Amino acid sequence: MINIALFGSGRIGRIHASNINAHPLCRLVHVVDPHKPSAQELADSFDASVVETEYALKSEEIDAVFICSPTDTHATLIELAARHQKAIFCEKPIDLSSQKVRECLAVVKQENALFMIGFNRRFDPNFAKLKQAVSENKIGNPESLVIISRDPQAPPSEYIRASGGMFKDMTIHDFDMARFLFDQDVLAVSASGRCLVDKRIEQEGDIDTAMVTLEFACGGLATIINSRRSGYGYDQRIEFHGSKGLIKAENVKSSLLQVWSAEGCMAEKPLDFFLERYKEAYQMELQYFVDVFNGGVPNTCDGDAGLKAMLLAEASLLSFKTGQRIELSKS
Amino acid sequence: MINIALFGSGRIGRIHASNINAHPLCRLVHVVDPHKPSAQELADSFDASVVETEYALKSEEIDAVFICSPTDTHATLIELAARHQKAIFCEKPIDLSSQKVRECLAVVKQENALFMIGFNRRFDPNFAKLKQAVSENKIGNPESLVIISRDPQAPPSEYIRASGGMFKDMTIHDFDMARFLFDQDVLAVSASGRCLVDKRIEQEGDIDTAMVTLEFACGGLATIINSRRSGYGYDQRIEFHGSKGLIKAENVKSSLLQVWSAEGCMAEKPLDFFLERYKEAYQMELQYFVDVFNGGVPNTCDGDAGLKAMLLAEASLLSFKTGQRIELSKS
Amino acid sequence: MINIALFGSGRIGRIHASNINAHPLCRLVHVVDPHKPSAQELADSFDASVVETEYALKSEEIDAVFICSPTDTHATLIELAARHQKAIFCEKPIDLSSQKVRECLAVVKQENALFMIGFNRRFDPNFAKLKQAVSENKIGNPESLVIISRDPQAPPSEYIRASGGMFKDMTIHDFDMARFLFDQDVLAVSASGRCLVDKRIEQEGDIDTAMVTLEFACGGLATIINSRRSGYGYDQRIEFHGSKGLIKAENVKSSLLQVWSAEGCMAEKPLDFFLERYKEAYQMELQYFVDVFNGGVPNTCDGDAGLKAMLLAEASLLSFKTGQRIELSKS
Amino acid sequence: MINIALFGSGRIGRIHASNINAHPLCRLVHVVDPHKPSAQELADSFDASVVETEYALKSEEIDAVFICSPTDTHATLIELAARHQKAIFCEKPIDLSSQKVRECLAVVKQENALFMIGFNRRFDPNFAKLKQAVSENKIGNPESLVIISRDPQAPPSEYIRASGGMFKDMTIHDFDMARFLFDQDVLAVSASGRCLVDKRIEQEGDIDTAMVTLEFACGGLATIINSRRSGYGYDQRIEFHGSKGLIKAENVKSSLLQVWSAEGCMAEKPLDFFLERYKEAYQMELQYFVDVFNGGVPNTCDGDAGLKAMLLAEASLLSFKTGQRIELSKS
Repeated sequence: MINIALFGSGRIGRIHASNINAHPLCRLVHVVDPHKPSAQELADSFDASVVETEYALKSEEIDAVFICSPTDTHATLIELAARHQKAIFCEKPIDLSSQKVRECLAVVKQENALFMIGFNRRFDPNFAKLKQAVSENKIGNPESLVIISRDPQAPPSEYIRASGGMFKDMTIHDFDMARFLFDQDVLAVSASGRCLVDKRIEQEGDIDTAMVTLEFACGGLATIINSRRSGYGYDQRIEFHGSKGLIKAENVKSSLLQVWSAEGCMAEKPLDFFLERYKEAYQMELQYFVDVFNGGVPNTCDGDAGLKAMLLAEASLLSFKTGQRIELSKS
Repeated sequence: MINIALFGSGRIGRIHASNINAHPLCRLVHVVDPHKPSAQELADSFDASVVETEYALKSEEIDAVFICSPTDTHATLIELAARHQKAIFCEKPIDLSSQKVRECLAVVKQENALFMIGFNRRFDPNFAKLKQAVSENKIGNPESLVIISRDPQAPPSEYIRASGGMFKDMTIHDFDMARFLFDQDVLAVSASGRCLVDKRIEQEGDIDTAMVTLEFACGGLATIINSRRSGYGYDQRIEFHGSKGLIKAENVKSSLLQVWSAEGCMAEKPLDFFLERYKEAYQMELQYFVDVFNGGVPNTCDGDAGLKAMLLAEASLLSFKTGQRIELSKS
Repeated sequence: MINIALFGSGRIGRIHASNINAHPLCRLVHVVDPHKPSAQELADSFDASVVETEYALKSEEIDAVFICSPTDTHATLIELAARHQKAIFCEKPIDLSSQKVRECLAVVKQENALFMIGFNRRFDPNFAKLKQAVSENKIGNPESLVIISRDPQAPPSEYIRASGGMFKDMTIHDFDMARFLFDQDVLAVSASGRCLVDKRIEQEGDIDTAMVTLEFACGGLATIINSRRSGYGYDQRIEFHGSKGLIKAENVKSSLLQVWSAEGCMAEKPLDFFLERYKEAYQMELQYFVDVFNGGVPNTCDGDAGLKAMLLAEASLLSFKTGQRIELSKS
Repeated sequence: MINIALFGSGRIGRIHASNINAHPLCRLVHVVDPHKPSAQELADSFDASVVETEYALKSEEIDAVFICSPTDTHATLIELAARHQKAIFCEKPIDLSSQKVRECLAVVKQENALFMIGFNRRFDPNFAKLKQAVSENKIGNPESLVIISRDPQAPPSEYIRASGGMFKDMTIHDFDMARFLFDQDVLAVSASGRCLVDKRIEQEGDIDTAMVTLEFACGGLATIINSRRSGYGYDQRIEFHGSKGLIKAENVKSSLLQVWSAEGCMAEKPLDFFLERYKEAYQMELQYFVDVFNGGVPNTCDGDAGLKAMLLAEASLLSFKTGQRIELSKS
């Protein structure tokens, strides 16, 4: 049994709490959140108790921490947890500064802590199966990857303000997915972006529409197409082309119904909300954490994955601002 | 909290046990099965105890029984449970003889017992949504229904022998679905059938391929297309045509991946196994039982539904044997 | 070069005239139609001349006749053409009475005339390819066939009145398709029908919705689902299930566009009109006639096909009226 | 009637010859090609005569020229034809040097000649309908365009050598499509490319895999994904996302058949060859030329379109070589 302290009782914290509770090998023991009513409510739902950070970290009962608090607390909590010999799961990103990420991961390494970053999409059954097929040589030598990733609608200004910007907040998932699927490092990145969806986003100094091209060490190329608003639900598609053909994952829908009428043949639009779309992914992500914790599988969704994705976000931002293709330095 | 005694610890009993255990308003208290090791193992998994039939029925703690034992025990258990004022959920069919079904339901009625029959497909999210759309007049006046229902592969001879034959064992689900979707009684039935898949089925005096046409009181028509072996998974499709157009539910697949190669564009085949295909349906079925038990919703999946489907199976068998269209008598 | 006289300058006559004109091995020489302005206009379009029936048949220049005149003239024209040693293409049906069809075909046989019946759907590229795949054992042993065939909208009363009724006018295409695909004779037929679409059709003593089950000599079964009005274009689908799996032909659409919006994912509806849907089929049908004429291929779309389809229509009508499965007599 | 002289009797010349011959308002009068046997064979097929360049251009009978000769002859022939007051249709590109294109178009302008460039894909029924839908505001304000364009297989080395390189030979179609769909000028371009498919292509100094991002004046973005070899036929897809949703055109296939088996659900792969895939596009392209010639519609597929596409190809090449985003100068 893995005894877990959860930091953060917001939306994503609640997802993990629920999955931890349902998992036969996990137990939610403590909830930590400065907003006590929220922490208490969550703790009550799952027979856990609300404690302070220090208490949770010092408790010998606790095996692992799940960090779902605001981004600017991640690095500090990771370092603390590592120093207390806890296994760590942290929502992405580790930090909005790659420098700070490096420092944080140095502590993790020094303490030899188990650290897993929450790139949930890797664990989506469709994408995981696609990755598996690529590994089994179903498309031959990988050549070009297209990731289309559009949110259903733009978030509020406050969210944008704290997000770190589109590349670090949204595209970061796609950077990781591209690296995950190619199983390669990126040599160079070229990014274009605009604010087309919502003027308030521009006022926050951010963009809402982006296209990024990645060049991989193996020679393969990837394009990421992002928008903060699709108009038709949560658009999450991948197609990967190789020397033998193509594999693609289509959008997940709430049903397979079709209505044929004088207007045409109507199918359902994609699922609208990430919690619904990636419900199974969050469950599989927890399972992976458990498997890594129990020593069954090597951890590939680690701090390095978090750092590399953040470096790609920074390089994309620089490319977008300078109009230049940015080469990634060897790490 | 609904305290439940489960009769039968086989494959389908285990499904219900697991769903009961996961449901916040249900508790599995007792398991009854003459095969003690199986009963004990199941009971142990869910903190329940193994008891005898009489004990379970007499226990004041027990609110409801779930009957998942062999078909030939259903009617007796239903009558006993009704007489002990238990709410009853019973797997289909109530009995292979419609005469015995009538007698059994007379007891249920006399005792004013809650009785729900396990027509799980009604609760499949796709089919339930299709039904909802029809109720909302999305296709206008319903005219013709096509149900394609093919098992992945033929069952063993022993199964066939005890099954009551194709119409009573397999088509019965489709009879109920047709009645459920039209929300009408059937006036007449015409059935054709053959043994094409497996000679052993013919040796058991049964068929494995059937086409049945139903004529509804409203004038609508339905065709059911059955086979004991699809060759490509569990084929479960419905299309319903009305004055404004058509609504259809396509097969559920394990992923939405496609592989494009020199051979063509390959998508996944339908899910293979009914427990996987109808996993959510069993959960929703339990939810419906809870809702009916708690008085929130009227029970439309009742003994009458079980009887009517069995009468259609008997009429189909007669039509198949005589080559005549059989009119259903007014019930 | 095949010199052709065309009987009938209506809609279907014009299709054949245009295809004849475009075919490198055919020449439209004469047009025959009691309605002279129509005949003249058509003849002028293709450098042909308007003549009387007798003239066309007696002309030594003429190799073949295309009979596209009203149904009640078919048998007489076929017999006359056969007696004048012309090759004959005739639109379906030969006659609305199977007795008259038999008499007519006796003359054709006696004169050893080439006779082809216009079952255009056999020549649709999709259906022809499906048939080819079945011949190549792609689905193994054929077991069950589902033909869904719905017109876009109901025809006017006058059309219904002269049509011979739904089975002889509309289902006849599907009877032929079922025979064509199974390459077998039918042993028995069971038909159900209703008038649901248009009350005027009922007033003409006809139905507009039908379901027919055919039992083939090989043991295979077929279901035909017909409606005079789909609500979403010309619905023409086939799926054929066998021991190894299923092959299906989906509807043909005017484009492959999809529009994804807040309402859902909309694709085009099927093509609306038979001339558009079966445009290529009519061209391939002519090519087949040419190939048969030139001796390259045996004629399988012959008088017997026309007779057998009409016998199935008559048997279906009898089944519909009596509520009995009708066995076809050995021919 | 438009009397036409055709320059070039190769593969693409033959397509145009055949379409000209079939068009009621066009007549193929002369064929010009230094390779006489080929010219003669083509001329014979369509009752045309083989003449020399000068003869064709000086002939008062000739209204228009179709230039389908090798690329390096295009500019000279265009200038000559313009000076002889012929209407001009020319296969893309005008020339591999944008400087030479400008000079050539200056002559065209000075002579006020009708000039149409053969960007055939604009006239594909699917893409034309997509453009029409965008014009009708079906997707709202256009934001991001994805063009996937992959050849079935890599061409021979000789072809590569004379092609001008991937951007000028292959991507040029996509540059034009992007400009056509956005109906806007491009401000900047970023291109990445590799040789992954065929080493012989690298030996010719060319690439076979490319991703190009275009930034439009309106703020919209486009990504073009190219490969010289798909592995599954001619992959030609477009999706265009706007403020209200998305419109997409899927690949065209030779049939709509599906085969469902134990391996999965197999649909046909895309059509393999451009002549088959764009058969209707070439016909509609000719119709557009006729419409422009007859004054019915303004010519938007003009020299400027040819120049702008070539400028984008040159800018892409520069971007690819320098790793910089290239801004297009105002024209």
